[in-house]
Amino acid sequence: MIQIGLLGFGTVGSGVVELIQKNQSTIAKRLGENLEIKKILVRNLNKKRLFSSEEKITDDPAKILGDNEISIIVELIGGDEPALTYIREALLAGKHVVTANKEVISKHGKELLDLAQKQGVNLFFEASVGGGIPIIRPMKQCLAANEVIKIMGILNGTTNYILTQMTEKNKSFEEALWEAQKEGYAESDPAADINGSDAARKLAILSSIAFNSRITPDQVYTEGIDSVNLIDINYAKELGYRIKLVAIGKRHGNEVEVSVTPILLKEKHPLASVSDAFNAILVEGNAVGRVMFYGQGAGKMPTASAVVADIMDAVRTRSGNRIYCTCYDELNIMNPGHSISRFYLRLRVTDKPGVLSKISGAMGENQISLSQVFQKNTMDHTAEIVMVTYEVPFENLQNALEEIKAYRQVEEISSVIRVEEES
Amino acid sequence: MIQIGLLGFGTVGSGVVELIQKNQSTIAKRLGENLEIKKILVRNLNKKRLFSSEEKITDDPAKILGDNEISIIVELIGGDEPALTYIREALLAGKHVVTANKEVISKHGKELLDLAQKQGVNLFFEASVGGGIPIIRPMKQCLAANEVIKIMGILNGTTNYILTQMTEKNKSFEEALWEAQKEGYAESDPAADINGSDAARKLAILSSIAFNSRITPDQVYTEGIDSVNLIDINYAKELGYRIKLVAIGKRHGNEVEVSVTPILLKEKHPLASVSDAFNAILVEGNAVGRVMFYGQGAGKMPTASAVVADIMDAVRTRSGNRIYCTCYDELNIMNPGHSISRFYLRLRVTDKPGVLSKISGAMGENQISLSQVFQKNTMDHTAEIVMVTYEVPFENLQNALEEIKAYRQVEEISSVIRVEEES
Repeated sequence: MIQIGLLGFGTVGSGVVELIQKNQSTIAKRLGENLEIKKILVRNLNKKRLFSSEEKITDDPAKILGDNEISIIVELIGGDEPALTYIREALLAGKHVVTANKEVISKHGKELLDLAQKQGVNLFFEASVGGGIPIIRPMKQCLAANEVIKIMGILNGTTNYILTQMTEKNKSFEEALWEAQKEGYAESDPAADINGSDAARKLAILSSIAFNSRITPDQVYTEGIDSVNLIDINYAKELGYRIKLVAIGKRHGNEVEVSVTPILLKEKHPLASVSDAFNAILVEGNAVGRVMFYGQGAGKMPTASAVVADIMDAVRTRSGNRIYCTCYDELNIMNPGHSISRFYLRLRVTDKPGVLSKISGAMGENQISLSQVFQKNTMDHTAEIVMVTYEVPFENLQNALEEIKAYRQVEEISSVIRVEEES
Repeated sequence: MIQIGLLGFGTVGSGVVELIQKNQSTIAKRLGENLEIKKILVRNLNKKRLFSSEEKITDDPAKILGDNEISIIVELIGGDEPALTYIREALLAGKHVVTANKEVISKHGKELLDLAQKQGVNLFFEASVGGGIPIIRPMKQCLAANEVIKIMGILNGTTNYILTQMTEKNKSFEEALWEAQKEGYAESDPAADINGSDAARKLAILSSIAFNSRITPDQVYTEGIDSVNLIDINYAKELGYRIKLVAIGKRHGNEVEVSVTPILLKEKHPLASVSDAFNAILVEGNAVGRVMFYGQGAGKMPTASAVVADIMDAVRTRSGNRIYCTCYDELNIMNPGHSISRFYLRLRVTDKPGVLSKISGAMGENQISLSQVFQKNTMDHTAEIVMVTYEVPFENLQNALEEIKAYRQVEEISSVIRVEEES
């Protein structure tokens, strides 16, 4: 009988209890052991719960972290503190730890893995990225013989659901967000999803593993989807693209480029057909080529699936076979200005002769060639200009846009979105 | 330094040597050990090779299986014998084994895993299904907390390439096969791919793991793509479907349904967009929901990627943490006649009054309802009838077709293809 201490009894916590109960027989047969949740840490004892064994619940972490019968701690509180402290204490107490905490792992992963190694215990975090989709273990083990060239992921279900509503149902951003909140795909305060920081944390974790170099969320160049307009979604469609919020990690020699931004993907790109709240991670290795992992990136039972699988692995690896921090390299983070990409631009200008010529001139001066240009006269002597550039360093584009912004006839630079070349 | 004995030096064997060389530094840093291929078994010493260390090559298996310095045997000969005997001898000699051999694993996997367990060594076979795509380890470990409801896979690159050529380039089966052979996606004798038996072996392996019950290739109901005509590909498109050769494993209580057949998939089905020689496996678990694994199902370097990752895992698990045979259940294989599905049918009839009525009558007598029917008069008083049924047991359809075949006006039952309901 393996005794487990559960920290946190929210959505995922109750999902884990449910799953261990529901699939008890299957889990026991596969593992050769029974899993028992001995104690559960909650914040507030008074909150009524539909839980059969009231004696398992405590609001005192010491009762769990100090219990010698408990060999595995499962941290599902989320956020920085007190989760970080509890995980440290669990490792110091010689207990294995399973967590879903992307904030703690993305910022403190290296320190905690080193501590686990020193203590001779294991730390698992499959559920911290991509919910139930197997991605951490495949990258650490199945793709271990590869040098990773690039990873691309749709890592946030909320924003993918919103963009899908905009693309398939022609909803505005605000309408799509409201729909997402109604359906439970977005929180009442969806900022961390919308502004890309949730995806940035997950990319930091994946990139650290992929490139064997410690990358933290603050190093990820991040743009959210707040400036993606339905107009851009439709222009993109006309041009044969879909707009997704894509996390990219790419190796350039001793540098690594990490970003989370909206991207125009060709219709045929494997990520372009990933809809609604689904996530997907595309990994390109120098032996395996392209592989993709796809599934539900969040949700009570998918996340519980990853947590309980990690618990089973913690049981199996009690006496050895551990993979600790593999961040032995120290790659530089590439300056986002040096990132080379194609770009989609949408500008609003006063419809006067010569404005297109001036804009193209500024582009040319910054070594930006244009692949497509079209202009639509909207109304009241205003025109909308849409351009797609060839590949150019981001800083060249930024320089050009600085100049262009200053022109009297340019009313607004409405949209600047990267375009992915490969399909 | 970990000493490895390589059995077989064909495409994958040389890929493994190349990969260990090329990514040597990365592998050593991640593993904490150096991998060395000490000896290589070939059939014919005289064959000239571009190989630096001639002294590694031998045609005597005893020199490898009896070498005490070698701790890991990598079997890449393929086929039943002598590979099966070599694997047994390696396990009996207390060596870990890594193999890509789907024939041996699908037919003898349980026996070999039990032998490995008895000998206290490990047996890995990630490369036996889906080339470089992580699937075996994710199923055994990452999805270990799930009860698997269904698995669906495109497991054969040759047939997927052919069907893609037919679908996207409007080629006939023969033209597409010729193209596949020219491009290296099909062997000169492609029978095992075309007739579905390659996919059946892979499905047997995946299903045994998914449903914890030993399933062998001979138990898989198998149809190949030899009877898929360009006409059917185009009718399917008109109806909003794509035709793929799909391996399906599905649990029904204490029974499991296993089949490899051409299937009409809705355009939006995740497997419908898997093209060319790519493979994909869709797994539905009762906690995680749907997850999909996609990538190159074959090829020198992708397969080598999976083999070397297994070698690394063999090194890590030298002292414990092994997953042996998990076939503890004994599920019955469902009688293929009881398999319930929708069906697409194409018939050639003499264009006489009443033929459609007779055919529909036979359908009705066998409780088969029709969802769509259309008729095209071709020439010379011949007509082509296409029908799509609602869900019906396969044996009901077989009975109806027996009757229909006997009608004087029915010249040929040209096509019978299952239609997948979900998207």
